[in-house]
Amino acid sequence: MKTLWAERYAQRTQRIQSSAIRELLKLTEQPDVISFAGGLPAPDVFPVKEFQEACQRVLAEQGPQALQYSTTEGYRPLREMIARHTARYGIVVGPENILITSGSQQALDLIGKVFINPGDRVLVEKPTYLGALQAWNAYQAEYVTVPLDDDGMQTDKLEAALRVGPKFLYVLPNFHNPAGVTLSLERRKKLIELADHYGVPIIEDDPYGQLRYEGDHLPALVVLDNEFQRHNGAPYSGNVIYLSTFSKTLAPGLRLGWIIAHHDVISKLVQAKQGADLHTSTFTQMVAYEVARGGFLDKHVRFIRTVYRERRDAMLHALERYFPTEVRWTRPQGGLFLWVILPEHLDAAEVLKEAIQEKVAFVPGGPFHPDGSGRNTMRLNFSYMSPEKIEEGIKRLGRVLERVLSSRYQCAA
Amino acid sequence: MKTLWAERYAQRTQRIQSSAIRELLKLTEQPDVISFAGGLPAPDVFPVKEFQEACQRVLAEQGPQALQYSTTEGYRPLREMIARHTARYGIVVGPENILITSGSQQALDLIGKVFINPGDRVLVEKPTYLGALQAWNAYQAEYVTVPLDDDGMQTDKLEAALRVGPKFLYVLPNFHNPAGVTLSLERRKKLIELADHYGVPIIEDDPYGQLRYEGDHLPALVVLDNEFQRHNGAPYSGNVIYLSTFSKTLAPGLRLGWIIAHHDVISKLVQAKQGADLHTSTFTQMVAYEVARGGFLDKHVRFIRTVYRERRDAMLHALERYFPTEVRWTRPQGGLFLWVILPEHLDAAEVLKEAIQEKVAFVPGGPFHPDGSGRNTMRLNFSYMSPEKIEEGIKRLGRVLERVLSSRYQCAA
Repeated sequence: MKTLWAERYAQRTQRIQSSAIRELLKLTEQPDVISFAGGLPAPDVFPVKEFQEACQRVLAEQGPQALQYSTTEGYRPLREMIARHTARYGIVVGPENILITSGSQQALDLIGKVFINPGDRVLVEKPTYLGALQAWNAYQAEYVTVPLDDDGMQTDKLEAALRVGPKFLYVLPNFHNPAGVTLSLERRKKLIELADHYGVPIIEDDPYGQLRYEGDHLPALVVLDNEFQRHNGAPYSGNVIYLSTFSKTLAPGLRLGWIIAHHDVISKLVQAKQGADLHTSTFTQMVAYEVARGGFLDKHVRFIRTVYRERRDAMLHALERYFPTEVRWTRPQGGLFLWVILPEHLDAAEVLKEAIQEKVAFVPGGPFHPDGSGRNTMRLNFSYMSPEKIEEGIKRLGRVLERVLSSRYQCAA
Repeated sequence: MKTLWAERYAQRTQRIQSSAIRELLKLTEQPDVISFAGGLPAPDVFPVKEFQEACQRVLAEQGPQALQYSTTEGYRPLREMIARHTARYGIVVGPENILITSGSQQALDLIGKVFINPGDRVLVEKPTYLGALQAWNAYQAEYVTVPLDDDGMQTDKLEAALRVGPKFLYVLPNFHNPAGVTLSLERRKKLIELADHYGVPIIEDDPYGQLRYEGDHLPALVVLDNEFQRHNGAPYSGNVIYLSTFSKTLAPGLRLGWIIAHHDVISKLVQAKQGADLHTSTFTQMVAYEVARGGFLDKHVRFIRTVYRERRDAMLHALERYFPTEVRWTRPQGGLFLWVILPEHLDAAEVLKEAIQEKVAFVPGGPFHPDGSGRNTMRLNFSYMSPEKIEEGIKRLGRVLERVLSSRYQCAA
């Protein structure tokens, strides 16, 4: 007889659903659609030549090692390089504090696996990164939310959420995905103080921190916590788990991210990773190290910044020019995304259907809200399309919004 | 204050422990130790030159695509190639039945995530693959076991285990890890019949199937189930989930495996993988495809077979020559491992301590038994060391066993 597979799935996967929006977005993969939907780096910034050279060097000099099994913790020279790089931003840790992951998404998954019991609360921003919700829904997390504004998480609303007793607090302080906003220094300090007071550890997700196009670098929460703790002069308090990735600075197709954490936490995460995928590809780790070392990564990040800054500016100018006055948006100082807030009565998922007719796409903001709110919001990516396409796409989207707004107002009248 | 991390771990990770044996085995990484402990392919069989050429071609012709995000299901030409390859063994499926995973270990993890509720029983062989237990312990599986003998799972003991109501049945029919044995054709048929009778789906793990050194290829369970079901002439029943990998035929450092399953199951696994690591490295998938295609993989597998057959023979000869008569072992027709059974009063973990003194290592068999039995067993790998080292290592190990056996007999007297 045939197996009734649906009757055999675990309870946790009941919440893992195929999304209607994902199906819609498949329509946007046609070449004539201008898509602001993905979170994709511009393919024209990938350092293809450097990858070619690195592959040759790695295979010629260390071929058998690069193709063999390796340790779960990750390639040691790569971890040492990450430790050196982060030290420049005041995050002083050793390789024993670093675990290489198969992209930042795996970091989120492993954290869920190690920490979340079914029903545990996780404190997140509203909106928050969809991939974190996807990872933690599988561990049956519940959420308590703190809303964002232009200065990031509204820390005056944080204390009430902390008193719920969350397992941890998850925050994207720099150029937030999806909202594009940055947590102010004052609020960073407030957040550290309150989290310490309630004994709630912090997961700081920082995939875009290096992609700042204006303004001054703000210290990471992991740095501010160390300053706050002043614990016996040791450089790293271990209270903040810090995540980052090479996906936005080198290439996402490698799937290389990392976790910085207390050594005890790294040990537990290593055990979890052993069961999850044994280790991240030895070859991609060695190639990434070969490409990044010797100062190339810094140089390359400077180049990416100039490309993305131009695209952000193109989008902001186009928004001013083509979007209806009833619509608001954020002005990111870096990263890949900005956030659009439509009048409350509009549903961005409905707008997307209209937009696809006009060959332009975005991601509706609803799924970034664990409480089901935010239906009138949308995320726009500005890294993937050229400035010309951005201008044209925003023009089309403005037209769609004008039309939708006028028809809705008519209905309401 | 400092975070008390240990108080924050989830219940499921209480069972994820750092193993004493893992610590012991770290001692065996010194170059003068002859190690039969790992499951490592011989580095001298890696096709380094072909990888160099493939990297160049992929980056020169499709660089931006290879470095970009890609679909969770996996690189389509690779899935199509896998479908063509498996069709030759009678497994007739399309790319929609195939999910590329970050090594076979991730396949085991995703299956655990999608199917196992805390406390669910999983039917496994005794001994069984340690990586499967590691993956599923994290989902709080319980186990019901069926012992092996030289013809694989003892199917006359299978019915009682099936009546316990396991979520699924996990079996390694070819050149079992750790036991080295192969499930006979008669037992394969019996297993299919019984699993069908009790409605229990099968996970068939086949990482070594192509590495047969003698005897005839036996049909996979997935093929036999299709024959048994004869369901409307369709080629794939969907009752058996089949796992395999490029780790033993191309290179484990790539982390590339795959799952063949019913399309509904693939959809669910894709959703789970999205939250786990988004997708497997685009670059390694494209490079592996480039290396494998055009008949190279078949040619290369023939070469690997000749190398490993010689090593297996070297180990079997050395065992005959140097091991005490009280010790028994399996005679694998393929794969990477053989299995040693010591007299019942001996503890292989204790033997390992002595062996490390003599600069030779193996993995004690206890951890491969979910019920805590098997302390008098050990796994020997024959793929990694040269025939000369195998001879020398088995000689040393024979000496250790002679000594341990004689001292134990004295104690018992």
